[in-house]
Amino acid sequence: MRKSIATVSISGSLTEKLDAVAEAGFDGVEIFENDLLGCPLPPERIRDRAAGLGLGIDLYQPFRDFEGVSPDRLAANLRRAELKFRTMERLGADTLLVCSNVTPDVAGDELAAEQLRLLADLAATHGIRIAYEALAWGRHVNEYLHAWRIVRMADHPALGTCLDSFHILSRGSDPGGIEALPGEKIFFLQLADAPVLAMDVLQWSRHYRCFPGQGGFDVTRLLAHVLRTGYAGPLSLEVFNDVFRQADTGRTAVDAMRSLIALEESVVQVLGAGSASEILDGGPPLPGPRPPGGFAFAELATRERDRLGTLLGALGFSRTGGHATKPVELWEQGGARILLNESVPGDPDTSVPGDPDTTLSAIGLESADPSASARRAQSLLSPVLPRDRAPREAALDAVAAPDGTQLFFCRSTPQDGADGPAHPDWRGDFSPAPPPADGLISHIDHVALSHPWHLFDEAVLFYRTVLGLRPHDSVEVADPYGLLRSRAMSNAAGTVRMALNIAHLGDGNLPRQHVALATDDIVAVAERLRDVPDVLLPIPDNYYDDLEARHDLGERRHRQLRALGLLYDTDGAGEFVHLYTTTVGRVFFEVVQRTGDYRGFGLPNTAVRLAAQHVPTSERGGRPSGPGR
Amino acid sequence: MRKSIATVSISGSLTEKLDAVAEAGFDGVEIFENDLLGCPLPPERIRDRAAGLGLGIDLYQPFRDFEGVSPDRLAANLRRAELKFRTMERLGADTLLVCSNVTPDVAGDELAAEQLRLLADLAATHGIRIAYEALAWGRHVNEYLHAWRIVRMADHPALGTCLDSFHILSRGSDPGGIEALPGEKIFFLQLADAPVLAMDVLQWSRHYRCFPGQGGFDVTRLLAHVLRTGYAGPLSLEVFNDVFRQADTGRTAVDAMRSLIALEESVVQVLGAGSASEILDGGPPLPGPRPPGGFAFAELATRERDRLGTLLGALGFSRTGGHATKPVELWEQGGARILLNESVPGDPDTSVPGDPDTTLSAIGLESADPSASARRAQSLLSPVLPRDRAPREAALDAVAAPDGTQLFFCRSTPQDGADGPAHPDWRGDFSPAPPPADGLISHIDHVALSHPWHLFDEAVLFYRTVLGLRPHDSVEVADPYGLLRSRAMSNAAGTVRMALNIAHLGDGNLPRQHVALATDDIVAVAERLRDVPDVLLPIPDNYYDDLEARHDLGERRHRQLRALGLLYDTDGAGEFVHLYTTTVGRVFFEVVQRTGDYRGFGLPNTAVRLAAQHVPTSERGGRPSGPGR
Repeated sequence: MRKSIATVSISGSLTEKLDAVAEAGFDGVEIFENDLLGCPLPPERIRDRAAGLGLGIDLYQPFRDFEGVSPDRLAANLRRAELKFRTMERLGADTLLVCSNVTPDVAGDELAAEQLRLLADLAATHGIRIAYEALAWGRHVNEYLHAWRIVRMADHPALGTCLDSFHILSRGSDPGGIEALPGEKIFFLQLADAPVLAMDVLQWSRHYRCFPGQGGFDVTRLLAHVLRTGYAGPLSLEVFNDVFRQADTGRTAVDAMRSLIALEESVVQVLGAGSASEILDGGPPLPGPRPPGGFAFAELATRERDRLGTLLGALGFSRTGGHATKPVELWEQGGARILLNESVPGDPDTSVPGDPDTTLSAIGLESADPSASARRAQSLLSPVLPRDRAPREAALDAVAAPDGTQLFFCRSTPQDGADGPAHPDWRGDFSPAPPPADGLISHIDHVALSHPWHLFDEAVLFYRTVLGLRPHDSVEVADPYGLLRSRAMSNAAGTVRMALNIAHLGDGNLPRQHVALATDDIVAVAERLRDVPDVLLPIPDNYYDDLEARHDLGERRHRQLRALGLLYDTDGAGEFVHLYTTTVGRVFFEVVQRTGDYRGFGLPNTAVRLAAQHVPTSERGGRPSGPGR
Repeated sequence: MRKSIATVSISGSLTEKLDAVAEAGFDGVEIFENDLLGCPLPPERIRDRAAGLGLGIDLYQPFRDFEGVSPDRLAANLRRAELKFRTMERLGADTLLVCSNVTPDVAGDELAAEQLRLLADLAATHGIRIAYEALAWGRHVNEYLHAWRIVRMADHPALGTCLDSFHILSRGSDPGGIEALPGEKIFFLQLADAPVLAMDVLQWSRHYRCFPGQGGFDVTRLLAHVLRTGYAGPLSLEVFNDVFRQADTGRTAVDAMRSLIALEESVVQVLGAGSASEILDGGPPLPGPRPPGGFAFAELATRERDRLGTLLGALGFSRTGGHATKPVELWEQGGARILLNESVPGDPDTSVPGDPDTTLSAIGLESADPSASARRAQSLLSPVLPRDRAPREAALDAVAAPDGTQLFFCRSTPQDGADGPAHPDWRGDFSPAPPPADGLISHIDHVALSHPWHLFDEAVLFYRTVLGLRPHDSVEVADPYGLLRSRAMSNAAGTVRMALNIAHLGDGNLPRQHVALATDDIVAVAERLRDVPDVLLPIPDNYYDDLEARHDLGERRHRQLRALGLLYDTDGAGEFVHLYTTTVGRVFFEVVQRTGDYRGFGLPNTAVRLAAQHVPTSERGGRPSGPGR
């Protein structure tokens, strides 16, 4: 379907917006009036510029507070409209969005219909159509079916309605009623998602909208209802978002396009395959989602190889191979694999202050068909990473995640041909070394990435659409220097879990990343680490006093947790016992033991961990802090 | 009165918080539990550290979800309480805050009272008191009078209530009911303000609280009711605020203390002078507020003296003096005075990217008694600026505003002794030059300062309390690269108006400052400026098309506004016609003509001005852009 976006959805001058929107592959734009008013180009030149970029101007908006008014007001409003129609002619826009009146003195439906009919008459003389929309906070008209009743009453060929998913879903209206509308009277469809918030709907709309798939609305279902009416106009994003207003224009436009591509895929699933060719304009569907089956590896770019080697050794890892052509080491234990890469000096996330000597640079994800996974990522506009492939190097299909982390799709399992096309094992690139001893660590439980504040919604959409991971609820944790926001994403089996964090802006904050390793015997891991200096993050004794007050686990167990620096959580379904190492560069390790059906990440302990990480080494009074304690 | 603050109100580790709170002059703290749990020091050392700083630990908080529960739950809760009492004994805290239960299964008042009586019995054995508080979102108890009824029913000497201004005022409860409570049963008083927002009260409370005087609640009135009961405990600030969590610890503590000092002053006004000595502990009252009578001058620190000289000349200013000992020039026109200072190279606002060559460094404010104005500012914890006073230099009393701008209190009027103590005219420092010709500019209408996002609430409180200016509503304007938040402040006569802006975080944003000059003939000013190259900011033609649609001012006037690059606004009470110059460094000038009783700042035109300021000079197609147009 034709894809459009309102200029208000992204940052920049009008010309910057047009360029970015065209570059991201959109077919058209809604011109938001303020963007025109601040532009030094006359409307004709804007029209030419858009046309040169292959963009249609699908809508001019908004025209406010027109209908249901006194005769005096009506005359002024028609004069205002006439001048706007002239501007639209110069601009080459043929549809005007008219929002339901929000001013206090608005009369009933019949007067509104009569006045909208006059407006449509005037519009028709300019070859313009009026799309009347119910604002969720309209004074008299604020439900989409109400706006539709008025349009029907006015009964004018140049008058139709505009549906906006935010205005409909924010009020909790049933979108099923849309199917009663004739598709040809839906003149325009605006799409936006939003997190589910309990707040004033005007503020919610103006600041917190986001692209479909980033919030909590079922935009897919609404779109399915609209398409069943025969609506064939554009899918147009109209998103007012404080973050997008400040973010990079081009990357927000790509983020927006990704959301529409994924929305098309999901609506095809709802409507059935028969609808696919029509919705996708006959183009090929996306390669289907292939949620990764597990973590193949985590790669650390580091200038601290020796320190990390010591840390990994203490955790029970062995060095099992060196890369044939690059300064990269493979460390293994059970099914957990860590690569130490000394060839990548920089930090992928340029917003990180300083130049951390160690960073989580890449994640390997198990895929039954790595090439198809990479093609899907590419179809969803992920940057595909070029790789220098040495002769013996296995094909690793890699894309860049929003924070710059490289994601490799690979197969670590022997090739039996049953799970997917043959694909060489990436481990073939590493010279053989002794196989790992059976250790206490079995696999990577989760990884936690830190995102700058302006990339968070983009990251959630990326992992949801590209990898097919499901977002958990967004949570907030108090760090001593600001609130940390975090959202977990996981596959259905729980074998791939990622925590996406936003770093706050507080001074001196180093956005940390970590790799959590799973064990079935956290006590044994802790006993081993206790005897290695400067490896365990000391946990304050005060934490254990509180833990004892909150949970009655028996005196022996409380003593053990305290002595070993272990943290504890339960969610009723199971238990979670974990520990943290100290940090190298931006990176630390966590070791976790899950029992029962515990699904979380030890959230109640995160604030204590964050506080402990800020304690200068010299002031760490907790235990254990090394041998002899 | 004793002044306290909850540790959750400011950023940092617990020890950093204690240091900052003591430094700002507080008498005590509430220890927020999470701050204790993340602290490596045992409670005894925290107690000693606080004592060494002269701080009492006035409250330990919060204890949640205690009352109205099943027998099983009660046993677990009493065990939990017993362990917390032991921690409090180690900490030296004798009052525990118990919040009303938010869990689903809460029974009625009698059970709650009975269980709170058991809790108070247990507390008493440790010498501890229980302060029971109604959370605004408590499941069964969420009104302060309800919590009080339960406390009265329980009737235990170790059980009282805690009042929190947020929980009371956010629900719209009438604080007048407080006077029915016996003062000795109010065990604690927590104070917070908040902007008036329509949103979920829990989120409102956790993210948007602010210090009294920064929001929209009448905290003074609530405090007056509390004091009339005979309450003699601490005034304690408990503020959950996303910004303060990330801001500098010490400066937030000072901001907090400033709010309490001003709150004491305002409550004395409500209760009458008889109460003053008791409330102020016999200390001297603040020197009364002396709202400035006007702008004495605006000073620009610049390395672009010549360019500014040309600009000021075009605006009709004349150079009327040079400073006796410093490279500072005085430029005058009517009652408007601009100082160009080449001796202050740096930008006072260190958050400004780059090194702007021109910045608004100081503002002179007319005061009938400059020394008293400075003493008041100092009593309200404003940094007093040291000045090197050359022999002939008049005493200028100066303090630093939150953004680093220097505020000078001075008298430009001849000394007649009637308005205040004799004070030398600051203009005596400048060597005489020809008096200014009578020009078109009469005085400084307003100045606009730009604040980093984390100093905005502090700035509002500063100007409100130190200068006695009144805040207008906070507004938001869309800049092409992010939302700009702005709040005007003015004195009652409108002779001192300031616009406080927050710069957004978008890339390449230069937070601008400006000086607005008043005229009675904006057309003549514009006609003069039109002929000087690169002085007027070009306004897009599209603005005038829209203006014509919105206002019917007659063809002649629309043509004139468009031809001269003038912007227009009306608020019903009057009209506002204005223009902007181009920017030098961070600074530009505005010229404004107010007619009738127009009180605003041309807000509907701000977005267009911001967009025009981002247009590269090479792309400016608007008019007028120089001679010949």
